[in-house]
Order: sequence, then C-alpha cells, then structure tokens
Amino acid sequence: MKLWDKGFSTDKKIDHFTVGNDRELDLVLAKYDVIASKAHAKMLGKVGLLSEDEAKELVKALDEIAKDIEKGKFAIEDDFEDMHSKIEFMLTEKLGDTGKKIHSARSRNDQVLVAMQLFLRDELTEIKDQVKELFDLLMKLADKHKNVLLPGYTHLQIAMPSSFGLWFSAYAESLIDDLYFVQAAYKAADQNPLGSAAGYGSSFPIDRSFTTAEMEFSTLKYNVVAAQMGRGKVEKATAFGISSVAATLSKMAMDICLYMSQNFNFISFPNELTTGSSIMPHKKNPDVFELIRAKCNKIQAVPNQLIMIMNNLPSGYHRDLQLVKEVIVPALQDMHACLEMMTFSLKEIKVNKAILEDPKYDYLFSVDTLNELVKSGMPFRDAYKTMGKAIENGNFKPKRDIEHTHEGSLGNLCLKQIKEKMEKSLDS
Amino acid sequence: MKLWDKGFSTDKKIDHFTVGNDRELDLVLAKYDVIASKAHAKMLGKVGLLSEDEAKELVKALDEIAKDIEKGKFAIEDDFEDMHSKIEFMLTEKLGDTGKKIHSARSRNDQVLVAMQLFLRDELTEIKDQVKELFDLLMKLADKHKNVLLPGYTHLQIAMPSSFGLWFSAYAESLIDDLYFVQAAYKAADQNPLGSAAGYGSSFPIDRSFTTAEMEFSTLKYNVVAAQMGRGKVEKATAFGISSVAATLSKMAMDICLYMSQNFNFISFPNELTTGSSIMPHKKNPDVFELIRAKCNKIQAVPNQLIMIMNNLPSGYHRDLQLVKEVIVPALQDMHACLEMMTFSLKEIKVNKAILEDPKYDYLFSVDTLNELVKSGMPFRDAYKTMGKAIENGNFKPKRDIEHTHEGSLGNLCLKQIKEKMEKSLDS
Amino acid sequence: MKLWDKGFSTDKKIDHFTVGNDRELDLVLAKYDVIASKAHAKMLGKVGLLSEDEAKELVKALDEIAKDIEKGKFAIEDDFEDMHSKIEFMLTEKLGDTGKKIHSARSRNDQVLVAMQLFLRDELTEIKDQVKELFDLLMKLADKHKNVLLPGYTHLQIAMPSSFGLWFSAYAESLIDDLYFVQAAYKAADQNPLGSAAGYGSSFPIDRSFTTAEMEFSTLKYNVVAAQMGRGKVEKATAFGISSVAATLSKMAMDICLYMSQNFNFISFPNELTTGSSIMPHKKNPDVFELIRAKCNKIQAVPNQLIMIMNNLPSGYHRDLQLVKEVIVPALQDMHACLEMMTFSLKEIKVNKAILEDPKYDYLFSVDTLNELVKSGMPFRDAYKTMGKAIENGNFKPKRDIEHTHEGSLGNLCLKQIKEKMEKSLDS
Amino acid sequence: MKLWDKGFSTDKKIDHFTVGNDRELDLVLAKYDVIASKAHAKMLGKVGLLSEDEAKELVKALDEIAKDIEKGKFAIEDDFEDMHSKIEFMLTEKLGDTGKKIHSARSRNDQVLVAMQLFLRDELTEIKDQVKELFDLLMKLADKHKNVLLPGYTHLQIAMPSSFGLWFSAYAESLIDDLYFVQAAYKAADQNPLGSAAGYGSSFPIDRSFTTAEMEFSTLKYNVVAAQMGRGKVEKATAFGISSVAATLSKMAMDICLYMSQNFNFISFPNELTTGSSIMPHKKNPDVFELIRAKCNKIQAVPNQLIMIMNNLPSGYHRDLQLVKEVIVPALQDMHACLEMMTFSLKEIKVNKAILEDPKYDYLFSVDTLNELVKSGMPFRDAYKTMGKAIENGNFKPKRDIEHTHEGSLGNLCLKQIKEKMEKSLDS
Repeated sequence: MKLWDKGFSTDKKIDHFTVGNDRELDLVLAKYDVIASKAHAKMLGKVGLLSEDEAKELVKALDEIAKDIEKGKFAIEDDFEDMHSKIEFMLTEKLGDTGKKIHSARSRNDQVLVAMQLFLRDELTEIKDQVKELFDLLMKLADKHKNVLLPGYTHLQIAMPSSFGLWFSAYAESLIDDLYFVQAAYKAADQNPLGSAAGYGSSFPIDRSFTTAEMEFSTLKYNVVAAQMGRGKVEKATAFGISSVAATLSKMAMDICLYMSQNFNFISFPNELTTGSSIMPHKKNPDVFELIRAKCNKIQAVPNQLIMIMNNLPSGYHRDLQLVKEVIVPALQDMHACLEMMTFSLKEIKVNKAILEDPKYDYLFSVDTLNELVKSGMPFRDAYKTMGKAIENGNFKPKRDIEHTHEGSLGNLCLKQIKEKMEKSLDS
Repeated sequence: MKLWDKGFSTDKKIDHFTVGNDRELDLVLAKYDVIASKAHAKMLGKVGLLSEDEAKELVKALDEIAKDIEKGKFAIEDDFEDMHSKIEFMLTEKLGDTGKKIHSARSRNDQVLVAMQLFLRDELTEIKDQVKELFDLLMKLADKHKNVLLPGYTHLQIAMPSSFGLWFSAYAESLIDDLYFVQAAYKAADQNPLGSAAGYGSSFPIDRSFTTAEMEFSTLKYNVVAAQMGRGKVEKATAFGISSVAATLSKMAMDICLYMSQNFNFISFPNELTTGSSIMPHKKNPDVFELIRAKCNKIQAVPNQLIMIMNNLPSGYHRDLQLVKEVIVPALQDMHACLEMMTFSLKEIKVNKAILEDPKYDYLFSVDTLNELVKSGMPFRDAYKTMGKAIENGNFKPKRDIEHTHEGSLGNLCLKQIKEKMEKSLDS
Repeated sequence: MKLWDKGFSTDKKIDHFTVGNDRELDLVLAKYDVIASKAHAKMLGKVGLLSEDEAKELVKALDEIAKDIEKGKFAIEDDFEDMHSKIEFMLTEKLGDTGKKIHSARSRNDQVLVAMQLFLRDELTEIKDQVKELFDLLMKLADKHKNVLLPGYTHLQIAMPSSFGLWFSAYAESLIDDLYFVQAAYKAADQNPLGSAAGYGSSFPIDRSFTTAEMEFSTLKYNVVAAQMGRGKVEKATAFGISSVAATLSKMAMDICLYMSQNFNFISFPNELTTGSSIMPHKKNPDVFELIRAKCNKIQAVPNQLIMIMNNLPSGYHRDLQLVKEVIVPALQDMHACLEMMTFSLKEIKVNKAILEDPKYDYLFSVDTLNELVKSGMPFRDAYKTMGKAIENGNFKPKRDIEHTHEGSLGNLCLKQIKEKMEKSLDS
Repeated sequence: MKLWDKGFSTDKKIDHFTVGNDRELDLVLAKYDVIASKAHAKMLGKVGLLSEDEAKELVKALDEIAKDIEKGKFAIEDDFEDMHSKIEFMLTEKLGDTGKKIHSARSRNDQVLVAMQLFLRDELTEIKDQVKELFDLLMKLADKHKNVLLPGYTHLQIAMPSSFGLWFSAYAESLIDDLYFVQAAYKAADQNPLGSAAGYGSSFPIDRSFTTAEMEFSTLKYNVVAAQMGRGKVEKATAFGISSVAATLSKMAMDICLYMSQNFNFISFPNELTTGSSIMPHKKNPDVFELIRAKCNKIQAVPNQLIMIMNNLPSGYHRDLQLVKEVIVPALQDMHACLEMMTFSLKEIKVNKAILEDPKYDYLFSVDTLNELVKSGMPFRDAYKTMGKAIENGNFKPKRDIEHTHEGSLGNLCLKQIKEKMEKSLDS
C-alpha cells in the first residue's frame, strides 16, 4: 500500500530502492508523528474541519498507538511505505472514514518535517544533558587532581608545566562553546513547521498557532516555503551542534590514547576498560577511546554529508531530502553513545602522580626560570638569550617551585567562574 | 629577523615554506594586534611589571602604529616573519629597551589568539549587519510583490501556487536561523584568551580581568589550556556561522539562475547585472548569481577544511594551526562580497507578473480544487481519486481564485511576525 | 568469547560500543576470510608449521564453512566478536587442537586486511561490469536518438543546438574517465597483505609468495608496515573510484529531473518509474532519479568521511580503523543499486522529438547563423556585433539546417572511437 | 575591455566580483593558452579558415608572446578580464584583423578547458617526478638504516619490533599506490577538449585530430558535451591524485613529529630544520613537518571543495566552474612545496641507534618469544595464555635476537622487488 498509489503497479525493485531503510528509521520517529497527528486532529476539530467527536476519536486512537510504540509493539510491515501510512492505516482500521480524514489539510512532507523537528528537539535536549554530566565530571576530576603536574607540550615538544587540573577543566570549559551550537540547533528546530503542507500551504483555514501551542514549540516557522526549506537544514543545524561536541571528545580521546602509551604513561584505566591483543599478550589497548575518537571524527563529517546531499537543489521538496534521515539518526545515536562512554570511562581514570620526576621534564621549567630573571629587571629578550646559552651549555637549573597565580592558570583554575559560565549558557 | 632566532641561519627555502602568506594576511590582523598590545601594556603597568611611564610610552607608540595601519602605511617587509615581530621592532626603534619589554608575560601564541578573536568579533558583527540588510530588502520585496503568483514546485514538478511574497520572505525567515549560528560563533569568539601565553599560562602576576575589560570581551576564556584550544576552534565556529548564511544565499542564487532561464522566465535583471557570451550574442547570463552560488558553496566547504587541518591533533599548540588563518580570512572576505552583491543585485530584480497565464500551470490549482471537494464533505482519499481521474481524462477545470488564509500562507505572509522574530533574535 | 579475553570480564556496554555492527558487516566479508584462511592453512602446511594432514583437514573444514556461507546458513551470534572468532570457533569444534593452530603466524589485523582487499577486488570488478553495461546502453541510446535535437544550455540559458545523441554519449564517454579511478583502486587492492601479522611481520618462516599465488593477487604488498598502512587506505582508494562514478550518475540524474519538469518536458518515463503525490494527483515525480542523485551525492562524501577517520593517525594499527568498514560496505551497496537502477530505468526513457519547434529555442541557432557570416569573410568580432544588433532589434532569422561535421559534434558523434577508447581502457 | 562587451557599462563592483583573482591565476596558465592558440591557428590554416600566411603570422606572434611569458614580461592589466582577452588584444595590436580571426571556431570555454588540461598534464608529470625522487630517497634511507630497530606500535602501545628499514620503505611502497591515482588523473587530463567551443561544438569544419597531434594529447575527448563536462572534473581527478600523495606525506609527517618528541626521541634534524620558541629557549620544534602535515591535510580537503562547487549542477557550462581554478592551482603549488620540503629535509634525518636499549621496550619481544613456544609445538592459544601469565607475574624474559625472514619483514625488506614494482607502475 502506498499513499500515492493510483492503481499503477510499481516494480518491487523500485520500491526497495525508493523506500530504503525508512521503515527501520521511522520506528525511532513514530512517537513524534503521533504527537503531531494529535495536535493536527485537535486543530481540525477546533476549526470545524472535523466534528468534535471525530477529533476526540482520533486523539484517543492516537493515544493507543502511542502506547503501542512505547511498549515496542508498533511495527511497520513491508506493505507500508513508512510510519505515516502505517499509522493512517491503523486509524482507518479503528475508525473507518474518520481515520481517513486526519490527512485533510496536511501533506506527508508536513508530517515528516514536524516529526523530525520534535525528534531533534528531544535529542538535542538529551545531548545537552549528557554534555552537562560530562562537564560536571571533568570539573570534579579537575578539582580532585588539581595539584598533580603534567608536562605541557607545544609542537609535541616538552614546553611548560601543566596539571591535571588544567587538563580536565580545559575540556570542560571547551564544552561550553560547543553547547552554543547545540543551543543554536535547538532554536532552529524549535519552530512549528506544521501547516506548510507540501511546502506551499493549504487553502484550508487551519490554525497554526493552535498546533504550535499544542506541541509546545516556542514559535512558528511562519512562511510555508521557509518551513519546507527547513527540511535538511534543521538536520544540518543539529549536525553543526553535535560536530562541535564531537570535536572536543575526539581531541580528548586523542590525548588519552597518547597519555596511555608507554612513552607517556600519564594515565591508566582498569582492565575492564582496555582490551588485549590476539598476538601481544602484554597490551592494554585503549579501544574505547580510539572508538570514541573515530566515531566523533565520523560525526564531524556529517555536516559535509548533509550539505553534499542538499547542495544546489532549488527550493521546493525533492526526494533527495529523504536521505537526510539515514544520515542524522545514526549520527545522533553515535553521539549519545560517545558521550555516555566518555563519562562512564573517565570515572575510572587513574592519574600517575609522579610524572615530572623524570629528568627529561626539567626543561618544562625553563620559562618560569627565565621569568625570574625578567622579574629581577633583565629585559625579556636578553633574559631569553642568557637562558638559551645556559641550556645549550648544559648549565640549566630548573626552578621547580612553580607559582602561577593569574586567573585560569594552574595555581588558580577559576573552576567556580567556569561553572557559572556554564550555568549562564544553559539559561540562555 | 625572527623572534626565535638563536643565531642559527635558516635556509631561505624553509623560511618561505614556513612563513607562507602570513605577512599578507597579517595586514588584515595588525589592527587587532595593536589593540591587544595596548591592553597588555596597560595591564603590565597596572600590575607593576612596567613603570607607569613605560606603559604610557608604549600605548602612545602603539596608537601611532594604529594610525599608520589605518592610513595603509603599515607594511611587513620580508625581514619580518609576521606582524608581531614587525610591531615589536617598531616599538623597539621608537622606545629602545622599553619596546622590548612589551613581550613580558605573553607569547606569540597568545597574541595570535587574541588578535584573531578580536578580528572575528568584528567580522561576525559585520556579517550580522549585512544579513540584516539583506533580510530587510527581502521583506520589502516580499511585501511589494506579495500578490504576484509563482508556480510552486516539488520534485521540480509543477505543484501548487506560490508567490513572490512567499519566495522572498522564505529566504528572509530562513536567514534568522543562520544568525543563530553567527551568534553562537560570536559567543565563542567573545572570550578573552590573552594571558594563556604559550598555552600554559605564566608565572607573572598578570591581571586578565583587566585586559578583558580593556578589550571589551564579555568574559574570559579562563582556563589557559582551553584558551589555546580555541585556536582553530573559534575559526571553525565562525565557519559554521558563515556556512549557514552561505547555504541560504547559494540556494537563492540557484533559484535565481533557474528562474532566469528562458524555460522559466520568472525574473530578470538589468543588463548591467548580466553578462554576455563571446559566441552567443543573445545571452543574458546570470554570472553574478552563479558566482554567489559557487563562492557560497566553497564557503560551505570551509568547516571541513578546518576540521581536516585540526583533526586528531593532541592538545597543545602545533604549527599546523597557523594554516587556519589562510582558510578563514579569504572565506570571510568572500562572505562579505556575496552578501553585498546579493543585496546590491536583488534591488534591481524585475518580476514577471503574468507567469501563471501559461496553461501549463493549470495543474497548480489541482490541490485547491480538490480541497473544495473535501470542504464539501467528501473524504480526502475519495476526493483524491476523483480528481486523479479528471486529470487523466483531461476534464480537470482549475479553480483559480485562491484563498490561502492561514498563518504563513500566500494570503497571510505574517511579515510583521517574521520581523519581530528577527528583532528578538538580534537581541539575544 | 573474545579472541583477546584474558579472563577479565568486560562490561556489556563496552562490548556493545566496541563491537558495533561488525557482526552484520562481517556476514558480507566472511566468504573472503575463508578464502584467505584456506590460503594460509595450505601455506602453513607447505612450510611445515602444520602437518600435511592438518592443513588438509583445515581446508576441508573451511570449504564446508564456505558452503554454509553461500547457502546463507552462516551466522555470527552475540557470543562472538566477529567472523574471525566465529570461524575459528567452528574450526576448533570440528577439528579440536588443529582448529586452534590456524591462527599461527597471523594476526586478526592480517585477516581483516586480506579479507577486505579480496572483497574490494570483487566489488570493484562488479562495479566495472555495471559501468560497462550502463556505457553500452548509453551508446545504444545515443545511436538510436542521434538525430533528435535538444537545446544546449550554458548558464542555464538557451545557447546552441545539442542532441540526444550528444547527451547520451557524453555521459558514456565521461564514464571512461571514472573507470580510470576504479582501476587505480583495483590496483591498490590487488596486492597481498597477508603475512603482515599485526603490522610488523612474523618470526615464522611464512611463504607470502605462495599465498599471493593462492589468492590470485597480482603482487605482494611487500613491506609489512606498508601492508598495515593499507588499512583504510585501500578503502579510500575504492571510495575515490566510486565517487568518480557517482558524480557522473548524479549529474545525469540532475539533468533527468530537470528535463522531466514541465518547464522543459524533454523526456518522460512510464508510470511504473515515477511516483505520485499524496496531495497533487497530477504529478509524475522522478523519485528514482532524485534518489540516484542523492545516494550518489552521499557516495561522493565517502572519501571525506574516511579521511576524517584516518587523518593524523600515526603509523601502526588503531582501533579507529575498524570504523572504515561500516562506511565503505554500505557505500558499495548504494553504488551497485544506483548503477542498477540507472540502467534499468534508462531502458524505458522516452524522448520528446519535437522539442525545438517551440520558438523560444530560435536563439539556439544564433551562433551557427553567425558562423555563416564568418565563413563568408567577415571578421568574427564584426559578425558578432552585427548579429547582436539583429537580435536586439528582433530581426534575427535562425538558420535551422545545422551542419556540424567535426569529430565529436552532433553530426559526427564518433561512437566507434569512443567504444574503442572504452575497450582500450578496460584492457589496461 | 571585455570579450562580451556589447556597449553596456558594467558596474566596477560587479567586475571585481566576477573577475576575482583570475588575472593572477592566469599568469600561471598563459603559457598553455599560447600553446593551444598556436595549434588552433595552424589548424585554421590547414582547413582553410585562415590563409596560410595568416596562420604563419599568428604562430609567429604567439611565439613572441610565449617568449614574453617565459621572461616574466607578460602582464594582464586591469583593462583585461583574463589572459585570453589580453593575448587576443596583443595579437590584434600586432596583426590587425588577422589577430581577431584567431577566435573563429572556438570559444573561451574551449580555451580555458584546453589550457587547464595542458597545465595539469605538466603539473602531474612534475608531481610524478617529485614522488619518484622522494621514493628513491626513502629506499636509500631504508637500506642505509635497515639494521636499526624501532619499536612498532599498535594502538600507540608498544607492540612488536620494527626497524627504520621497514619504516622508510613502508612510506616508499605506499607512494606507489598514490601514483596509481596520479596516473589516472593524467589519463583524464590527456585528452584534447579543443573544438568543443561553448560545449556543443561548432559548425566550422575544424580538424580536431590535427590539434590533438599538435598538442601531443594521447587522444581526443571526442564528444563535445563530454569535453565541457571535463571542466572541473579533470581538476577533481587531479585532486584525487594529489590527495593520495598528500595523505602519505601527512602520515609520515605525523610520525616524524611524534618521533621528535622527547617522549620518543627516535630521530632528530639539524638546527637549520627546526625552529625555536619565543618563550621556551630549549625547544627544537618540527615546524617544517607540522606544516607539511597541515598543508597535506588541507590538500586532502580539496576534492571535497571541488565537489561542493560542482555538485548538482546540470550539464552545460556555468560560471561556477571558474572558481575551480582558484582551488586547484594553489593546491598544486602546495603539493610541489610539500614534496620538495619533505625530500629536502629527510636527507638530513638523524636516527637514534640505541632506542631499544630502554627496558620499557622489552615487551616488544613478547610475540617472538611466544612464537618460539609455538614452534616448539604448543598450540597458539595455549602459548598465548602462558605468556600472558608470565608478563602479569613479571617473569617475562624477552628473546632479543630477532629473526624475521619472510618477504617484507624486517630481516628481508624486498627493496629490490619494491623498486621493480615502482618501475612497472611508472611504465603503465
């Protein structure tokens, strides 16, 4: 059964090609189609396109379908092209002609749009929560290990003293910036597109403000052509949001993999969080972090995938946009999994407290030693040359009692201020 | 002269390879290095690392350099690696030892970071203004042509009636979403990184809140490691912002190129805005819009370029990050040019008022005609079949007196509400 | 059961995160693991690491597994991490200790590498065959419709006369270039990596030339580190190959969607190959071609996805590389489906033979008319100005009897030469 | 002066926007426009569209322009849109009406296409030569340092013994695969497009086989529409080629940066090839290799940039394609520079010969020690468990006298066979 069936038989192969894995993906989205259908039915009742009784019946039947979905009882069989046709079929089975009437004054494009935006709103909220949880953990770890020193590198060369306090809270503060993009995506999704029909509105006197309130959207995507343009664009907005988060996780995972190498040996994890090798029995491999890195790098390629699909398409719906779903849904699942695994694993991190005892890290202190010379009045460039000579001649003596006191330095992490910045960002 | 010169001669070829086109790009950024240097000098005076007189002398000398830059008199000769070394050289020439002292308690990484963020803040503000100007024009055009009908397409097939009112204001409303990302980028840039030195802070008792206020940053990027992580990341944030705007412009340019084709013939532009052909004298080519489309598509590839450069680099500075500048600076210039040309050109657009008179557009009205049947009580699916048959048998008679009344439809564009949404977005 | 299990219990969640959808993907690859395992077993027998009987037993058992796979009876249960552990388990069940011995002198990295390369060799061969089939059809269609004229556009403006002969065979000739990249990918895949073990070779005296011959590889990837570097790189090579083919199909699909629009109306397809609309009963939508376009555009994003995952990883295996499989396998399936659907659908194309009768296409002939002036002795630039004036004044009279005779022009398609070029390319 | 000037004045701003940096880029391409113009002029003489004398005069004048270009005397002033209009202007100045006649039977699209393909052919040849030079150096270094051991890593964990012999020659053998793509790009470029005019051929009886022979193209791009489709496509083919090479260089640069870190300390370079830090006088930063890595990563983003510009454009020329030039030309310059710097710098590499003396590398030998157990008859999985226990209990004693004898292993590098493979690849 196809919604667009006009009696023509369509070759099975074409069916397979055009439907793709929509049925599977729609299981994730069906819940949101029901929410939107309820709002639509109520609105049709309100404006008189349905009788009050018809609207009530539809809402009741949709509530039952919602329960089926929640219980995992909802399925989209091969006879149905997608969730929309299956749900409409269920309504017609339950309610006869009344079931058919729900499609008045809306189009499938409409339904896909609004279901996707409701879905993305939930997903982005969950991601925000997961990021906040990771942020809290990182801040806690920063505080706990604030006095454990770590070599700071530039160009992968030993540079200046850093600390686990700095390292953990750097990723925490960095996540705040990522949330700006998650929130921008949320704003893009949080605008009711329902009522745009096939992208050019409807001659029915529908009440879009009513459905907006019903579905708790902050505002309408007013212009119906703009609403349709949201198809793919809202997904891309979401992709920018998760790509930002993913970049931060990927970078941290890279650090972790490096720091677990025997050549650094800064941190370790319990055996449960590492894997062995089929041929090298001594190995403790950071597979979890390598996969976080790789999945997050794959997520960073998602905006480009979406742009590639949509690029240079003139306005108006094209079937191409169907493919957007199979890109963004798994990317969101990967994002959730990476955030969960990162938080789950970092709880078990063990930091090596004696790292800087190795003499190869002496040079870390060269700058602070140099600064002493400057504080004592020597111009910077001259102090610099003096130090250079000392190092070259092997006369360098590190000043190991570090005092960094300024805001954001290793002696003054400003964790409180960073937390406040995060709170402020979450409120906006 | 190199800042890092320790007496080793460096091969010319290496110099060319490593410096690249930094000198040219730095001419754009020099203004911001001076602003940051002034803030730094004042702060050094305040905390006692310079005498009050030294700080004043430096500020005065920097003001003079700022004037040179404004007048186009500032140059970075081949002897200098970049703007930082040139400016320091000028200060030393003017002030002797005092000139050298400005580099106390900061690093070149620091300077590049803060200059770039000051630059991006200005650039993003200008882009916001340009987007607003284009938005205003589109809204004006939507209002002016709100009664001129246009075919609406889905799948590039004639679908339903649209209008120039819908078309223009769709792009306007769509730009609001893009601004969410421009603003997210602004927030990312609007955090003072100065004081992070080489990425691990300084043992000097610098006052970062002072420089934050001095440069009018909304907040600090507190953590010094996080500040350094901003290198490349802030540029990528900016790229997400302009990529969003570029996607909207590119799509509109695609529509324009299509609509100017003789096969559509919906719009035209004066000769000054089209170009001819060396071999086809009758052509009026939409080169300006093709180039807006292409440049905007190139801009959409910028986030990916930046990610590719930064991806999988562990934390801490790497010279790789220098390349970020040569990607983002021209992209911003292209963005400004595209916004300017789009606004400039659209002012001259001529719309064809008699488009729908062509009988091939009759089918546009099939849905509205169908809706009449539904309003008269026929279930949607049955009305649909009836209409389908009429069309197949050639009996279809379009109902051309369209009445779309709901919010955001062609009869009710909600321009006021869209403007309010824009204003609200600009305030946030 | 994990190959790397050393008695540590691993949390289920981690297991799910790390294994991902490997089991599903491995069903596609299992056949090739068996082929490689047979070659490895025979080789172990040959060099004396197994007895002749053991090797024979292993080969026999592997042949049985191959039959199971072919019959769809092979499954990878949740107890097994991947095909490698399942196959080894089956061998051990069948043969006891002998089953365990097959893992001598190889590593799982080894197995994944060689199975993937065997798989890609087959896939690329199939793609080459599919491209050839599409090429043949396009050449046949070019010949069949060689006299049907079509407007040629530049800048989407009506430009010069073209023909269906030119249009069809342009895509055919263009595919030859794509095959150069498919063949380059084939060469990259057609080098035996088996024997590289975990990426650093083995202390066993294995005979890699023997397995090379056994698996019919053209050569060895000699250097074991280079072999391991092939992980991901061979997939990227394949992605370059299919990205090339996909670009050509995407472009042709874009042309088709445009040409099916009522504003062009150059071609049509039977109802079975178009779809309708739930709300616009008259529509014949080119969904098949829109999905070819979109899937091919998604394929064009695959090289970037792979680069993003692999970029900046130092040499040596990283678990990140596991993710490459879940990118390339579905991309290949999409590529096959797009090639199949394009060939399947194009067989049914109907071309409109009277396109140029519409007077809007008169200007198509302006250049040929101009050329007559030039042939009669007028300098080009002067003829150009004369024609321009005639067109502006409405005096232009098209010369419709076109004679294009040069190689590759619409009067001289050189189909024979293009076919020969294709044959030559297939031989190389 | 514009070729397409019809007396309309065009706003300066538009001119700037549309011409962009074409004049600068055209200085690189002008040489090839002259070559193609000479071939075209000779052909026009041969087929009688010019008199023999006219053709000779044109060839002579073009030879003079070629000399100007070679001497750096050729300039494209702001009055000229591009090289084509400048060269035509010079011819007209020298030869009057005869100069104008060279544009008979060709179009600017034609000229750009053929000049670009001639340019790319030269560029790809140079890249092939540079890759070969780097290959030769790597092979020499592999041979020189074949006995110096290096830890081999998997998951960045110490895994198995490797060697500088393996490491250097792995990159060498890997480059052979990259050349397959450089050569595929060469084949795509090595087809004469001249004669396609604006993309639909010409009514003049031009002789394309003649110009093909004249410019030493291996074959024609026969179909004129296919020839025009080559615009952008040939550049993308080139981008696939250099992206392959760039990936290999980037990876090697990443290894080098890691190995130069004090935490690895495997290799070093003379001071001339490293840079210092403005604030850390002891540093020896691998800027050259970081920039090779970054530039090569940027090159890897080029195919995506090009696809983004061209994607979803229907067939026929669009002005968008002009932008392709400003992407590919600098990318090729970066590629040459990276290859040159890599070869230049690697000549100076110093390898640390005593790396494995550090006891942390003992575990490298675990596999070989395990293999001894297997050779002595223990089943692999049992030997594996035994070893695992020894390592856990601290009883592990490494067997340091490694004997890897199989093809491609550290004891048998097969340098001769790899060289032969390279030679064979260069011949194909």
